[in-house]
Amino acid sequence: MTSSSKKSVLIIGGGAVGAIAALNLEVGGLASVTLVLRSNFNAVNEHGFDIKSCDHGRVNSWKPSVVRNSIPDIAKESLPSYDYIVLCTKNIPDVPPTVVDLVTPALPETNTHTTLILLQNGLHIYRPFLETHPQTPVLSGISMIGSEEIFPGQIIQDEGDKLIIGAFPNPNIDPPTSAALEFVNIYKNGGKTDCKLSEDVLHDRWRKLVYNACLNPICAILGLDTGRLRLSADGEVVEHLVRPAMWEIVEAARANGVVLDEDVVQKMIDADPLQSYLNPSMLADVKKGNLIEHENLLGEPLREGKKAGVMMPKIEMLYYMAKGIQWRTMEVRGMVEIPPKNV
Amino acid sequence: MTSSSKKSVLIIGGGAVGAIAALNLEVGGLASVTLVLRSNFNAVNEHGFDIKSCDHGRVNSWKPSVVRNSIPDIAKESLPSYDYIVLCTKNIPDVPPTVVDLVTPALPETNTHTTLILLQNGLHIYRPFLETHPQTPVLSGISMIGSEEIFPGQIIQDEGDKLIIGAFPNPNIDPPTSAALEFVNIYKNGGKTDCKLSEDVLHDRWRKLVYNACLNPICAILGLDTGRLRLSADGEVVEHLVRPAMWEIVEAARANGVVLDEDVVQKMIDADPLQSYLNPSMLADVKKGNLIEHENLLGEPLREGKKAGVMMPKIEMLYYMAKGIQWRTMEVRGMVEIPPKNV
Repeated sequence: MTSSSKKSVLIIGGGAVGAIAALNLEVGGLASVTLVLRSNFNAVNEHGFDIKSCDHGRVNSWKPSVVRNSIPDIAKESLPSYDYIVLCTKNIPDVPPTVVDLVTPALPETNTHTTLILLQNGLHIYRPFLETHPQTPVLSGISMIGSEEIFPGQIIQDEGDKLIIGAFPNPNIDPPTSAALEFVNIYKNGGKTDCKLSEDVLHDRWRKLVYNACLNPICAILGLDTGRLRLSADGEVVEHLVRPAMWEIVEAARANGVVLDEDVVQKMIDADPLQSYLNPSMLADVKKGNLIEHENLLGEPLREGKKAGVMMPKIEMLYYMAKGIQWRTMEVRGMVEIPPKNV
Repeated sequence: MTSSSKKSVLIIGGGAVGAIAALNLEVGGLASVTLVLRSNFNAVNEHGFDIKSCDHGRVNSWKPSVVRNSIPDIAKESLPSYDYIVLCTKNIPDVPPTVVDLVTPALPETNTHTTLILLQNGLHIYRPFLETHPQTPVLSGISMIGSEEIFPGQIIQDEGDKLIIGAFPNPNIDPPTSAALEFVNIYKNGGKTDCKLSEDVLHDRWRKLVYNACLNPICAILGLDTGRLRLSADGEVVEHLVRPAMWEIVEAARANGVVLDEDVVQKMIDADPLQSYLNPSMLADVKKGNLIEHENLLGEPLREGKKAGVMMPKIEMLYYMAKGIQWRTMEVRGMVEIPPKNV
């Protein structure tokens, strides 16, 4: 296959997830990747990525075809449309810019060509695009990777990259199933990763929430990794907080027409090897002083569950605690002002 | 009054609360204080306390009559019985030594003379003494002081010392009302502080729990002082977490025969001046890497409320979160061992 016949892929966000996606797509040989970086741009632009990966081995001083420190404005820059745009940033609707604002300059006006892939967590993250880009095919990407950027441009991936791709619902267009299938083939062409087509995007997203709306925020709030959380207080924290919160998600999913397997709760509790002592994303974010994705991981399933008549007292409490923690981060970063201290 | 006619008072714990109590008792002139210090013994023994107090002004290089770095063993040391022993340590029954273990060497065998004053927070903290020291008069001391030890021996007291003294129930002896009254008079004799007799110890203790089982752990868990907690997320954290948790305590109290004033919830939310940005005790403890008093502040009201048939979902969740945080502190301090990390 010649370079010109490769698919053009723009990846926005080159952290622990985006960098491995970029590497994997280029290793496969069917895609030419432009990667948009922010905080690690200088490090990567000068020295490339250093990656230690259970899928790809050691990869030093590696760069994708193009690295940039801004999102392309394809009209202003007279660039051709990308075939795919993969969003690998955090998705934090409570703090601007929104993902729609972020991606809009890289899409053609009245786009039908470029397929958008939201490689992000949470429920209903496609909905804002239905309003602003009703004709744009939007795919769901659920990543099960274990990967961390320990220094700018230095990435350790210690759990295999498993990606599930599927079409988000859109009443305005035919479901972009062929685009989904094509992207799966491009992604798995290198033979190093597990990428497959989703049979049911909504099911997959609710399923991942069993981990992401429960273990993830509880670890972040208590400052405990998943191994320590399971060990803490002789397992009482798991039994009295994690497990009942997970059942609330299972019930909310069921009330929304999604039946999860009976063993999903235990599987998610045991998902991370205990002695790996892994930091789930929210805990990693809190430790780094970053904002957290609680609106899509907690707020949205809470609202959908309550709308369907499910009592979710544990998830609700986690949601408001996460709001408090988000506010704390914003205050530390100077994003909110408070009255001066009276001395 | 001559020195010999003074009452002998042993204060165990010379932190922010115990040091001010010691100062106030000696200023009053009716007591001779022996103060047991631990972490700040060397600093205080060499240089005395430096205290900046809204009640007492600036007091430099001050020491009570006796400072010690161990609890007196009155039998071994052939010391006379103290008239009063005031316990100002943290009360953490989940981690040895218990307060009973702590105080026993300083009490005469089969004591009836020495009156014990538990100047500590939480519910039913007298109960262990009913078993081990059934004849010992035990008083409740509820302190409303705002005081912090910023460095060893350096104390800033910025909220007035208000102390409420009363007799804990004891089926084996007449209620030690005269001892309570005497101690109130000794304590307030300096004219600098507000010390009064409790009309209803159980009522006072449940009332303080409205603050201590709700605001206090929520601040500790979220890492927010009371001012920031009230400001956070436009007040949503207060409305969705603090206020409903407080109502659970009010209901648990009512089910246990204690009727609190209707306005207690709002009063406790507003208890600390917003712009003081005060750290409640649990938050201060977490920040210092100290253990927290969640068993007496959360566990005991939760058990009593549930026993009386009150649903306490918010308090229950706070309790298990506090357990997780206690375990985290213990793990950091090497008090629990965990399996090694697999690399």
